[in-house]
Amino acid sequence: MPYIDVDPNLPGIRSLMAFSPQTAEPMGKIANLMLRTNEGLTMAEREMIATYVSYLNDCFYCQQSHGAIVSCYLNDDNKLIDQIKNDYEQAEISGKLKALLSIAGSVQKGGRHVTEEQVKKAKEAGATDKDIHDTVLITALFCLFNRYVDGLATNTPTDLSTYPPRAKQIAEHGYGNHIFSTPQPA
Amino acid sequence: MPYIDVDPNLPGIRSLMAFSPQTAEPMGKIANLMLRTNEGLTMAEREMIATYVSYLNDCFYCQQSHGAIVSCYLNDDNKLIDQIKNDYEQAEISGKLKALLSIAGSVQKGGRHVTEEQVKKAKEAGATDKDIHDTVLITALFCLFNRYVDGLATNTPTDLSTYPPRAKQIAEHGYGNHIFSTPQPA
Repeated sequence: MPYIDVDPNLPGIRSLMAFSPQTAEPMGKIANLMLRTNEGLTMAEREMIATYVSYLNDCFYCQQSHGAIVSCYLNDDNKLIDQIKNDYEQAEISGKLKALLSIAGSVQKGGRHVTEEQVKKAKEAGATDKDIHDTVLITALFCLFNRYVDGLATNTPTDLSTYPPRAKQIAEHGYGNHIFSTPQPA
Repeated sequence: MPYIDVDPNLPGIRSLMAFSPQTAEPMGKIANLMLRTNEGLTMAEREMIATYVSYLNDCFYCQQSHGAIVSCYLNDDNKLIDQIKNDYEQAEISGKLKALLSIAGSVQKGGRHVTEEQVKKAKEAGATDKDIHDTVLITALFCLFNRYVDGLATNTPTDLSTYPPRAKQIAEHGYGNHIFSTPQPA
């Protein structure tokens, strides 16, 4: 039961974006800028970082929503994202992405947890300044989203089949503010 | 020493906003929407929540920057913000703000830490749904900003006298993106 009076037909962050459309607009804009580009990191890799951070923050809604987007991009029935959650060092991903997920794991705990050694390793694995910047910002952004969603106890669909149709919409059209505020299942 | 190649003349988040002006724009917009209004919570109260969260996240740059803004609004030489950091239950603030700072402290740990009891107490003390929403979002926002600033090891001025002049600019003009990206001391 949400802590504030939001539309009961909308799940997770979508109910909050309808409650506060003014802040929804710039939030959707940052989400698009950070998650809907293949510059440096691919869109799938960006969603992997987002899902991994949401998993570390134990945010069911965000990890299901963004995990479904990864799966939609890769068409792999959650295989890779499950590997990453389980042990990303053993997952079938690049050394660069492994080094960046290590940085993401530190930022999730708090900014001061990142070490020079982690950054050095990421650069040696081919990460550019922009890749490192984007990894830190995506992680920080999901530390926001996860807290916003769970801190207000928004509705979280437990039926996992509701996430892929929504993921497909986002994979096709991005995080437009109009998508956030239109009532649609999951 | 910052982990990425940012302008060495810019401190904290301002160096990152110059590095990534595209994301700076919506970030400045959310900051203005959440911190530069007296609807429900005053601008000073909003900055108190921001400073308290930055203190809990041990982000020196953000807690000094926003603490200086509180002090600028109240013209009290940091008296109240120091009381809040030390023990907000004993500070000269309303019962409503104390209940909201309690929620902020839980959200800082993670969204799932907020309890029904905390929300009930805040509502009994006069908090509206918007006050609770704004408290959670301000807290989540600073969990982003603090991680962005420290996760990339940005420059943090240790000379405390550099913060008040900047605070005065923000108190007078708000968080315009143009302010973030203009090179000025602290």
